[in-house]
Amino acid sequence: MIIVSGKAKLSPGGLAKVQKEMEGVIAATRKEEGCIGYSFGADVMEPDTILVLEYWKSWAALDAHVKQPHMGEWFAKLGEIGVISQEIRFIEAGEERNLMG
Amino acid sequence: MIIVSGKAKLSPGGLAKVQKEMEGVIAATRKEEGCIGYSFGADVMEPDTILVLEYWKSWAALDAHVKQPHMGEWFAKLGEIGVISQEIRFIEAGEERNLMG
Repeated sequence: MIIVSGKAKLSPGGLAKVQKEMEGVIAATRKEEGCIGYSFGADVMEPDTILVLEYWKSWAALDAHVKQPHMGEWFAKLGEIGVISQEIRFIEAGEERNLMG
Repeated sequence: MIIVSGKAKLSPGGLAKVQKEMEGVIAATRKEEGCIGYSFGADVMEPDTILVLEYWKSWAALDAHVKQPHMGEWFAKLGEIGVISQEIRFIEAGEERNLMG
């Protein structure tokens, strides 16, 4: 499994401007082959910052994902709104532990 | 590195009730030994759902974290508010790729 995680900080007021597009890209992505989970959150400490959390079955599935038309539209929208900074990590899962009892 | 990620769904209206406590637990945890990153987000699709994203240097650092007094207080607050469901995963990082160019 591949975990995509991190943050993207948008220009001031940017998060509210992309709410509709976020809902669209999440709904479309969750239907993709190899998508195990795909969620965005509004960071509770930093305004206009999207917390990203995605799980993919493989690097190939993730590679196919970023080439989807809805992702092109999403990246274009982000470019229009303005991404001030971002740090997204792409990590293959190693050992998993069950610490919840 | 250990990645802790997932979601916790609180009772209706619960997220607003824990805003102050979330800010406190995030600030305290970021000062802990072995904490690389610790963020909460408000899921943009599911109301009252906290998106969790944490990075730790080791399983030992994570183990020490959950025993901190501020975590005991946080878990008690969550119990008081009511957690309807949660799925948090504890995964050791394997290969990391740089896909952002």
